[in-house]
Amino acid sequence: MTNQKHMSAKGLLLVGHGSRLQYNKELITTTAEMMKESGGDYLIKSCFLEYSNPTVAEGLDLMRSEDLEILIVVPLFLAKGIHILRDIPKILGLEAGKKRGTFTLADGRVVPLVYAEPIGIDPLLAELMLKNAANALTLPEDA
Amino acid sequence: MTNQKHMSAKGLLLVGHGSRLQYNKELITTTAEMMKESGGDYLIKSCFLEYSNPTVAEGLDLMRSEDLEILIVVPLFLAKGIHILRDIPKILGLEAGKKRGTFTLADGRVVPLVYAEPIGIDPLLAELMLKNAANALTLPEDA
Repeated sequence: MTNQKHMSAKGLLLVGHGSRLQYNKELITTTAEMMKESGGDYLIKSCFLEYSNPTVAEGLDLMRSEDLEILIVVPLFLAKGIHILRDIPKILGLEAGKKRGTFTLADGRVVPLVYAEPIGIDPLLAELMLKNAANALTLPEDA
Repeated sequence: MTNQKHMSAKGLLLVGHGSRLQYNKELITTTAEMMKESGGDYLIKSCFLEYSNPTVAEGLDLMRSEDLEILIVVPLFLAKGIHILRDIPKILGLEAGKKRGTFTLADGRVVPLVYAEPIGIDPLLAELMLKNAANALTLPEDA
């Protein structure tokens, strides 16, 4: 049916650094869960650059079989660094310095890919750090 | 005058990782500025574990000459890792696993020191990543 309603989704691939300890993976996967709950209309998956699984290549493969209209790659990193500027773009097949590319789905369709900024300078980050400072003031005496 | 009004402040030392690139330093110092502006009653300074200046030891020295009632050390790191669990506590002279210690001011007074959590799992972080994803969708065609 040519007039069948399209259900294509915006894919959101959250990329974390990964770590030998469990904390980074927990942070990324729980943040992904929170993002799903907060009601965006994204199809969200997470992956890791190093140490943890799935890898970024595996994350991309998981996205490939979905019916996507676009793929947004969102790095959960603090700031630009060599991973943001070089390593992740390379895996995504992005041209140097570019934020837009393409993503080929398993059925052969080519959809746009956009590469989001890392956390960066943001009032929400300042708020979060003030919250952590305030929480520290309430620590029990034997903490 | 023994009944002179005390003006002691809560010191807040923001600790960043530091980087050979400028982005991490910019993130930390600008976040510190935003924290000052958002009206907390903290005396805020920032410092870095590696690559950037001032170092954590230098940051502590800058705090030492202030009239503090307490020092809160807030790591601007994503999640617990070896820097959070071992390196920073060691410089702060904290016992293993402890979040509370003491800080000796230049005039010899000993005040409490508390060690806050890194960014960690927080709805504000999920909100920030959704914001970055939404921003990526508005990138110009040639980005």
